[in-house]
Amino acid sequence: MALAIGVDLGGTKIAAGVVDENGTIVAANRRPTPSLSSEAVIDAIAELVLELREQHTVEAVCVAAPGFVDAARSTLMFTPNLPMRNEALGARLTSSIGLPVLIENDANAAAWGEARFGAARGRANAVILTVGTGLGGGVIVDDRLVRGAFGFAAEVGHMTLIPDGLECGCGQRGCWEQYTSGNALLRTARHLAAQQRTDAQRLLSLGDGTPEGIQGQHITLAAQQGCPVAIASFNQIGEQLGRGMATVSALLDPEVFVIGGGVCEAGDLLLAPIRAEYEVRLTARSHRPLPTIVAATLGNDAGIVGAADLARQG
Amino acid sequence: MALAIGVDLGGTKIAAGVVDENGTIVAANRRPTPSLSSEAVIDAIAELVLELREQHTVEAVCVAAPGFVDAARSTLMFTPNLPMRNEALGARLTSSIGLPVLIENDANAAAWGEARFGAARGRANAVILTVGTGLGGGVIVDDRLVRGAFGFAAEVGHMTLIPDGLECGCGQRGCWEQYTSGNALLRTARHLAAQQRTDAQRLLSLGDGTPEGIQGQHITLAAQQGCPVAIASFNQIGEQLGRGMATVSALLDPEVFVIGGGVCEAGDLLLAPIRAEYEVRLTARSHRPLPTIVAATLGNDAGIVGAADLARQG
Amino acid sequence: MALAIGVDLGGTKIAAGVVDENGTIVAANRRPTPSLSSEAVIDAIAELVLELREQHTVEAVCVAAPGFVDAARSTLMFTPNLPMRNEALGARLTSSIGLPVLIENDANAAAWGEARFGAARGRANAVILTVGTGLGGGVIVDDRLVRGAFGFAAEVGHMTLIPDGLECGCGQRGCWEQYTSGNALLRTARHLAAQQRTDAQRLLSLGDGTPEGIQGQHITLAAQQGCPVAIASFNQIGEQLGRGMATVSALLDPEVFVIGGGVCEAGDLLLAPIRAEYEVRLTARSHRPLPTIVAATLGNDAGIVGAADLARQG
Amino acid sequence: MALAIGVDLGGTKIAAGVVDENGTIVAANRRPTPSLSSEAVIDAIAELVLELREQHTVEAVCVAAPGFVDAARSTLMFTPNLPMRNEALGARLTSSIGLPVLIENDANAAAWGEARFGAARGRANAVILTVGTGLGGGVIVDDRLVRGAFGFAAEVGHMTLIPDGLECGCGQRGCWEQYTSGNALLRTARHLAAQQRTDAQRLLSLGDGTPEGIQGQHITLAAQQGCPVAIASFNQIGEQLGRGMATVSALLDPEVFVIGGGVCEAGDLLLAPIRAEYEVRLTARSHRPLPTIVAATLGNDAGIVGAADLARQG
Repeated sequence: MALAIGVDLGGTKIAAGVVDENGTIVAANRRPTPSLSSEAVIDAIAELVLELREQHTVEAVCVAAPGFVDAARSTLMFTPNLPMRNEALGARLTSSIGLPVLIENDANAAAWGEARFGAARGRANAVILTVGTGLGGGVIVDDRLVRGAFGFAAEVGHMTLIPDGLECGCGQRGCWEQYTSGNALLRTARHLAAQQRTDAQRLLSLGDGTPEGIQGQHITLAAQQGCPVAIASFNQIGEQLGRGMATVSALLDPEVFVIGGGVCEAGDLLLAPIRAEYEVRLTARSHRPLPTIVAATLGNDAGIVGAADLARQG
Repeated sequence: MALAIGVDLGGTKIAAGVVDENGTIVAANRRPTPSLSSEAVIDAIAELVLELREQHTVEAVCVAAPGFVDAARSTLMFTPNLPMRNEALGARLTSSIGLPVLIENDANAAAWGEARFGAARGRANAVILTVGTGLGGGVIVDDRLVRGAFGFAAEVGHMTLIPDGLECGCGQRGCWEQYTSGNALLRTARHLAAQQRTDAQRLLSLGDGTPEGIQGQHITLAAQQGCPVAIASFNQIGEQLGRGMATVSALLDPEVFVIGGGVCEAGDLLLAPIRAEYEVRLTARSHRPLPTIVAATLGNDAGIVGAADLARQG
Repeated sequence: MALAIGVDLGGTKIAAGVVDENGTIVAANRRPTPSLSSEAVIDAIAELVLELREQHTVEAVCVAAPGFVDAARSTLMFTPNLPMRNEALGARLTSSIGLPVLIENDANAAAWGEARFGAARGRANAVILTVGTGLGGGVIVDDRLVRGAFGFAAEVGHMTLIPDGLECGCGQRGCWEQYTSGNALLRTARHLAAQQRTDAQRLLSLGDGTPEGIQGQHITLAAQQGCPVAIASFNQIGEQLGRGMATVSALLDPEVFVIGGGVCEAGDLLLAPIRAEYEVRLTARSHRPLPTIVAATLGNDAGIVGAADLARQG
Repeated sequence: MALAIGVDLGGTKIAAGVVDENGTIVAANRRPTPSLSSEAVIDAIAELVLELREQHTVEAVCVAAPGFVDAARSTLMFTPNLPMRNEALGARLTSSIGLPVLIENDANAAAWGEARFGAARGRANAVILTVGTGLGGGVIVDDRLVRGAFGFAAEVGHMTLIPDGLECGCGQRGCWEQYTSGNALLRTARHLAAQQRTDAQRLLSLGDGTPEGIQGQHITLAAQQGCPVAIASFNQIGEQLGRGMATVSALLDPEVFVIGGGVCEAGDLLLAPIRAEYEVRLTARSHRPLPTIVAATLGNDAGIVGAADLARQG
C-alpha cells in the first residue's frame, strides 16, 4: 500500500508521520522546532523524514506550515512564528530529501485530513472550522481543497462579523475570530464574571478568585459543573459561530460543518448553541436541506494525515 | 465547430441562443413567458429550441432558470416567479427535444458566461456579483462553477452584512442585498433627498419633485451631472459592496471580482467607491496581491452564453 | 384639598378624571374619540370636563395628547392619529371651559404620574419606559419633567440602538423600538417559531398553528407555561431594552427605571432579562450605585393622574 | 460686583481664576499638580486661592475635578489620575480656606461655562461635547446642569454607539468615544494611511513617513492642505459624532450642541460632516426645528469660568 509522509511544522514542535492510504499513521516522530534559522528548520524536517524512511518506503512528502504558501505549493511566503520569509521550502526539501515535497497551509492540511478520513469523510462539500486560540479553517468544494487564487482562501477568522466591531490583530475590525475563538471565550467569561460575581462563583473559584485569573480550561470545567456564567460564555461564542456559519452557507452551501480545535473539546456546551443559532439565521431555511454540524474526529493528527494525503495526490 | 443552445428562462420572457465554442451567439430568438402552467412554459422552451435547430446542428441544451436547481441539475425545486414546483424540467425537455438538457440556476449560468468568455475570461478563481433589483452572483473556484452540496451556493445577497440589520424578504435581517442593490440605491437616494433637499435638487427635478418620485435611472443621471445626493447614494451602495467583498475574499481569495447588473451601468460612480472601500477592509492587505475589480462585459447575454457552454460540458 | 382634572386623549377614547393632591382619582368618565373634526374632539373634551365639574370644584385642567406639543404647552403641533394639525388646543379649551388648560404629550404625562405617585414616587431622577405597541417614555431630572427645547424630548423609542438596523416608521434605521416593543416581541416570536417549530409547539397551539397566527397575548401565556420559544422571545426583547437603558444611564444616570406598558404585564419574564443585560452593559459598573428597575404601578391611569398634577402645578 | 474663584484641577496642573458675574476672568494663576499625596494637592489649591484673594474679595470657590463627585458636591469619590479616593475635598478646603467650597466634575463645570457665558449662552437646553483625547461633555436641561442621581450623568463618551463594537477602557464595547475622539481620529488616520499610501502622502510626509508616525496635529494640517486621507479621517469622526448626537436629541431635544475640545480646532473639517450626518439621522427631521451645532468659544478657560459661576450659585 502506498505510503506518504505528512509533516506538521509548528511554532514549538515539528511532528511527522508515515500515513497509509486509509489515513492511518503507521509511524511517527517529533522534535522541537529550531528557532535560530531557516536552515536549522529545514535540516530538522529532513532528519525527521530520513528517520521515518529507514523503516518505511514512502512516495512523497507534504509539509503543513503555519503561514501563507504560494500557488505552486512550494514557497512559504509569510509565517508569523518561524524565521522564514519567501522561503523556497519545497525546492530545498525536495533536493535534500530526494522525494517530491509539497508545502501546504497547516489549516488547509488539517481540513483536508478531516475531509478525507475524519468527520467529513465522504462529503464532497465541507467547511472545517478550527476554534483554537483564534479561528481557522479549510474549505472543500466538490472534493477539492480550495486554496484561492493566491493561496489566501479559508481565512475564515477574518470574515467580518460585526461592522466597526472589535479590533483584530490583522488591522481590521469586527473579524469573526474576535467573537468566536479561545481568546473570545476567555474575554467573554472574564467580562461576565466581573459584572455578575454571584453567578460566576464556581468559575472564579477555579482560579485565584479574580476575573483576570480565569483560564480557558476553567470555563469548560465550570460549565460542566453548571456555572451560569461559564455556560453563558459558551452560549455567546457558539451563537457567534452559528451566525457566521449562516453567512458561509449562503456563499458555499456545504453539506457538513466540522468544528475542531481546543475549544471544541467542550462538546455540546459549544455545539448546541452553534446549531440553535445557525438554524435561526440560515437564509431560505424552510426551502433547503440542513447541513450536519459535527465535531472533528482526528484531533491533533489531522494536519499530518491531511498533509500525507495531499502529498500522495501530488 | 460544436454548437450548443443556451436558454434564459425569465419571469417575463424566454430568450434562447445558439452559441459556438468561442461564446459567440450565432442565432437567437425569444418569446414571452407563458404564465398559465408549467406545461406551457415547457412547450415554449421546446419550440424555441426547435426553431433554432432548423438552421443549426446543436449538441446539447441548458436552461438557465430563476430558482433552486437540484444537485443533478435536472429538477427545478423552487422558483419565486414561475408556475413550477419540484418540476422535472430536465427530463421533460430532454424527452420532448431529443437532446441532453441540463438545468442551471440563472445567476450561476450568467456567472459562468462571464468566467468563460467575459470579464473573468482566463481566470481560474472569480466571483461575479450582479447588482440588479437584488444582489445575485456566482462563484468560480479552480475553473469550476461552485453549486454547493444542495444547489444553494452563491446566494451572495443573503450573506449577513449587518447583524440585526434591515429586514430581508428571505426572513432574515441584515442581508447584503438590503444594502447594495438597485432597491437599496433607490431607498438610500430617497432617504437622503428627503433630508437634504437642497443638495438633492438636481435629482428631485428629474422626477415629480418628491423623494418618492425618484426612480433608479434618475440617480445615475443626476450623479453624472454632479448631484451631491445622487453621488452620495452611489458611494453608500459601493461602500457596502466593497465591505462584503472583503469578507468574500477572506473565504475564497478570488483573483477577480466581476460586477454586473443594471446598477453597474453607472460605471466608475459605482466601481470607484467599491474599490476604495474594498482595499481598506481587506484583511492582510499588505501581504497579498489585490484582485482586480472589473465591470461585466456580456450584459444580458451572459446567461445564454454561460448556459450553452455548460450544456456543451455536460 | 385642591382638585384638578386630567384628560387622556387617545385615538379611540377620551378618558378624564378628577384627581386630588395625593394622585387619587375621585371621579372619572370617558367617551369614544370623535373622528370627524378637531371641533368635535374639543367639544367632547369640554363636555367631559363639564360633567366632572358638576360634582367637583377643580382648579385647572391638563390634556395628555398623543403627539408633539409646543414649548408653551398650548398647541398640538402634530399627532398621527387625530384630525388635528397645529391646533391651538389649549387656548380653545381654556376659552370654552373657563379654566386654565395645559396640553402635554401623553407619554410625558404618564411618566409624570409614575414619578409623582407611582413606581418612581420620591425619586428625583427617573426614566419611565413604556413598552406598548411601540416604545415611549418620559424623563424626570431633578424632580422636573424634561420636555426639551422644542417639546420633542423623551422620544426614547427613536434612539438608535443598531446602526443600519431595522427600518422604522420614522424614516430612520435601527431605532430602539424596532427591537423592544410589542411589535418587536411579536415579530421575534413569529420568526423563532417559524425556524424552531418543535420548541414553539405550545406557543403555536394557542393560535391557528401557524407563526403568523401568533398574537401578543399568546406569547405571555406560552412563556408562563414554559414554552422555550416564547421565553426566548421575551429574553431577546428584554436584552435589547437593557442595552438601551445602559446608554440612557451613561447620559442621565437616573436612580430608577420604571417599565410600563402592556408588554410589562409579563412581569419577571421581561424584567429579569432587562436587569441581567443592563448590569452587564452599564459603564463603570463597579464604581457606581445601580439604579433600581421596577414595574410601573399606575397602569392606564398614569396619564390622567400625571396630567392632573401638571395642571395643578401650572 | 460679586466675584468667585473657579479652580481647574488637572492631572498635570492646577489653574485658578477670579471670575466676575459676566464670566470674565479678572485674575488667574496656576501651578503644577503635586503628585505625592492628597494633602499636597489640597495645600496647593488652598495656596492658589489665598494668593488670588490677596487682591480680590471673593464669595465662594468651586473646584472642577477630573472624576466622580458625590451628589452633595463635596466628596471626590474616584479619579483616575490623582492620588485621591473618597476624598472629602469640599469640607477640607472649606475649613482651610474659610469660604464655601463646592466640588464639581470638570466636564460638567466646563459645560456650564459654555452654557452661561460661551457658545450656548442664553440657551436653556444645551449639550456640550468635548472631543479631546476621549469624548466628554455636559448636559443642560431647563437652565440647570444635569448631574444625575449619583453624579454620573453626561458620561456621553460611554453611550453605546456600535453594539459589540470596539473595546473601551471602561470594560464595555462600542462606546461612542472609541469612534469619535482624538484617539479615534489618530487610529482612523493611521489605518487609512496604511491602506492607501498614495492618498496619504501629504499626511505621511509630516511625520517619519510611516502610519505609526502620524500625530494628531499632522491630521489637521494635512487636511487643511487637502490630503484625501486626512479629510476622510475627519469625515469618519464627524459622521460618528453626528450619529450619536441624533440619539442624544431623541432623548433630550436640546436647542444647541456645542462642540469643544482639541479636535474641534479643525473647525469646519469636523463640523461639516457632523452637521450633514446629524441631519440625515435625526428622527422626525421634517416635523421639528433643527438645533444649532456650534464650536465652543471659551477654550481652556471654560472650566474655571463654569466652576466660578457654580460657586456663586451655591
